Amino acid sequence: MKRIDTKEIYEHLDKYMDSEVLLKGWIRNHRKQKEFGFISFSDGTQFNQIQIVYDKSLENFDEIQKWLVGCAISVSGKLVSSPKENQAFEIRATKITLEGDCPEDFPIQPKRHTREFLREQAYLRPRTNLFQAVFRIRSVASLAIHEYFQQNGYLYVHTPIITGADCEGSDQMFKLTTFDFDNLPKDSDGKVDFTKDLFGKKAYITGSGQLQAEAFALAFDRVYTFGPTLRTENSNTKVHANEFWMIEPEISFCDLDGLMDIEEDMLKYVVKYVLDHCKDEIDFCSNFVEKGLREKLEKLVSSQFVRIDHKDVVDILKKADVKWEFQPEYGEDIAKEHEKYITEYFDSPVFIKNWPKDIKAYYMKLNSDNQTVAAVDLEVPGAGELMGGSQREDDYDKLVERMKEFGIATEGMEWYLNLRRYGGCMHSGFGMGFERLIIYLTGVDNIRDVLPFPRTPKSCDY
Amino acid sequence: MKRIDTKEIYEHLDKYMDSEVLLKGWIRNHRKQKEFGFISFSDGTQFNQIQIVYDKSLENFDEIQKWLVGCAISVSGKLVSSPKENQAFEIRATKITLEGDCPEDFPIQPKRHTREFLREQAYLRPRTNLFQAVFRIRSVASLAIHEYFQQNGYLYVHTPIITGADCEGSDQMFKLTTFDFDNLPKDSDGKVDFTKDLFGKKAYITGSGQLQAEAFALAFDRVYTFGPTLRTENSNTKVHANEFWMIEPEISFCDLDGLMDIEEDMLKYVVKYVLDHCKDEIDFCSNFVEKGLREKLEKLVSSQFVRIDHKDVVDILKKADVKWEFQPEYGEDIAKEHEKYITEYFDSPVFIKNWPKDIKAYYMKLNSDNQTVAAVDLEVPGAGELMGGSQREDDYDKLVERMKEFGIATEGMEWYLNLRRYGGCMHSGFGMGFERLIIYLTGVDNIRDVLPFPRTPKSCDY
Repeated sequence: MKRIDTKEIYEHLDKYMDSEVLLKGWIRNHRKQKEFGFISFSDGTQFNQIQIVYDKSLENFDEIQKWLVGCAISVSGKLVSSPKENQAFEIRATKITLEGDCPEDFPIQPKRHTREFLREQAYLRPRTNLFQAVFRIRSVASLAIHEYFQQNGYLYVHTPIITGADCEGSDQMFKLTTFDFDNLPKDSDGKVDFTKDLFGKKAYITGSGQLQAEAFALAFDRVYTFGPTLRTENSNTKVHANEFWMIEPEISFCDLDGLMDIEEDMLKYVVKYVLDHCKDEIDFCSNFVEKGLREKLEKLVSSQFVRIDHKDVVDILKKADVKWEFQPEYGEDIAKEHEKYITEYFDSPVFIKNWPKDIKAYYMKLNSDNQTVAAVDLEVPGAGELMGGSQREDDYDKLVERMKEFGIATEGMEWYLNLRRYGGCMHSGFGMGFERLIIYLTGVDNIRDVLPFPRTPKSCDY
Repeated sequence: MKRIDTKEIYEHLDKYMDSEVLLKGWIRNHRKQKEFGFISFSDGTQFNQIQIVYDKSLENFDEIQKWLVGCAISVSGKLVSSPKENQAFEIRATKITLEGDCPEDFPIQPKRHTREFLREQAYLRPRTNLFQAVFRIRSVASLAIHEYFQQNGYLYVHTPIITGADCEGSDQMFKLTTFDFDNLPKDSDGKVDFTKDLFGKKAYITGSGQLQAEAFALAFDRVYTFGPTLRTENSNTKVHANEFWMIEPEISFCDLDGLMDIEEDMLKYVVKYVLDHCKDEIDFCSNFVEKGLREKLEKLVSSQFVRIDHKDVVDILKKADVKWEFQPEYGEDIAKEHEKYITEYFDSPVFIKNWPKDIKAYYMKLNSDNQTVAAVDLEVPGAGELMGGSQREDDYDKLVERMKEFGIATEGMEWYLNLRRYGGCMHSGFGMGFERLIIYLTGVDNIRDVLPFPRTPKSCDY
């Protein structure tokens, strides 16, 4: 008999009702009675546990009763409608065999564990309801992103993560080497001689694939990256990790308005896709992680995002009857408290656009006012900044000027500048931190709980 | 008027014939006559160039005639059937404007460039036919892989690339640090003090996500990774790069036969998907890169792969009337010349299975003969080894024993060993180097030409 997924059963219940099935998976809970036993069973192919009922007619009844939570088992049995309310069916077992034993020190027991405890068991926590939901949503959202972009004609480009230069400046980049640290080759000045390293020069892990994505956008019209990003930030907060995933689309012949259209359309597509494909997982999160999560997500899909200039946001903040920790100012950045106020003020996701030029990156297009750049951040209620993007400076001379202002060397960046000389049209792009999205989609508020094996300062286990 | 993709036109030619359209893209070639001009135009949304015809009725006719190859332009015009053979339509321009100028030193001209030259212009080569084909196929094959696994119930897991340990041993791993190399903190023994580094210990970039994928497979039944992999190999060959992408599926309750079923099914799905979705690109590669490529790929889809034990392969090799550079031996690895012979011998992809235990990794399941492991390599005609996989050792004691034999420390690996104690059932997995697949799909024989910005020894530009 061929093994079947519980996902297949859930999706075609009528087909399997009163049929013999063979399942393989793990014991999540086990209640024993003198003549019967009840196993809560999960095979991980869908969210719900399935009840297995067995009785003394099984020749290994006594043996089965010794199997503990965590054991891997095979179950043959008949799928029947259940006498219990809230349970459409159960399996009357005709045969249960052990596929992998589990002792009683198994850390994941059918009781409430704290998320801090589960973080220390990162290799086992996927066997809990919460992490079954979080990582399924993460996987489905990944596919939704790929499908959105490819259906809309974007090319997926694998930009390199090893680099000799970087677009944001190198202070947040990990250094990469093949050297033996206790035996570094030195040059005649006593400095480490990187000409002897694998690439013949200093190498880093980049924090962004944007520059290379721009090169590809100017050939394929529109492209996106989706891969891991490393940053050295020494911050122990709920939203920082040293390794995370990022999506960076880049689009030719696209201005700031066009960019906002794409960001809004993409986000709604992904949220709707997850609502449609992760019903049980969203229900679980909506009940046990963030009350009202489902409604929040449904509202986003049907809303129209607000678009407002940075200076008009500051106007609103200045008029607000709030005692700010950071006073809002026209030429300055928006603090977390301001983000929160403004999304609550509009009760909607808000695009804040046309930012003061001095607080944004050198590659953002200078507006005709010479004071602001065509940059846009998307602020989402309850999640803060979800995406950041801009029209790119496509004027060669202005870009060189901006690099000078920011103290960024043009050496090694000639190719990036040349993109402005060789048919370099108007183009725009944005970046979205994928974990921010998953935090928003699940209601889980700590980035350590949406990454399979988080890397944070002083923490690099598994 | 709204801009339209040439892809949209190609897919719905009837709909747009004799209509006004607005296109944006780049000049690939420009032939001028006294009264007319002909522009070969590409917008990068599909493979083919489109002919734009303009004449003296355009008020900026003289200006247009000065625009060189590489310029970005906007074209308004009418789509009409073409008088030329082999060309279904052309655009009669009513307006052409410049979106981005391009000087005559633009390196990509409408003539044959060598691939070596184009590698030095990695940021511009996507604007050539060859690289339009290669990188479109790469993007579409990526999506095919995601769709295959997700349609078949696999969870996409983002395993970390930063690690403190590694499954293959650490000799091929890049070291990662936040230290200033010319000012390293030292401990009391004069050694570099990694307790002061970001993670409080030595950190590396892993060459595989397999170990973490195993943990997730034992919760979600089956999972896959798809991400970048770094290796320090100092090899300047056509098939080695220091950064490449890899797919690593891991499946519970799956033995070696089941694993081969999955590998064969997945490969056929991806190849067929690319044949169906990249018709023009495959035709181009089949005509100009590898003669007969299309037939090779079609044959693979309809073939049944051979499955044969390592020792039986050696039997065949020993009987062959060939003067080997490396003599085939039962306990030893298979050389490139052997791989080539055996795929030609069967004229088919060949799974070589049950390998001598001493030449394979510690985590592969020891067979009952105590001499071989349940490992399998897939050899493909013209491409060599495309995938490598195995059933995993699921016996705790045997795994510890094998780690000892290979001199691999169990310290830091307790969690991986524990997967065998806590409901650790039979499971299997494999790895596929994504560039190997793209080389096979395009006929391009150098890994530097299937990676957007290749990183190889002494080469880390862009």
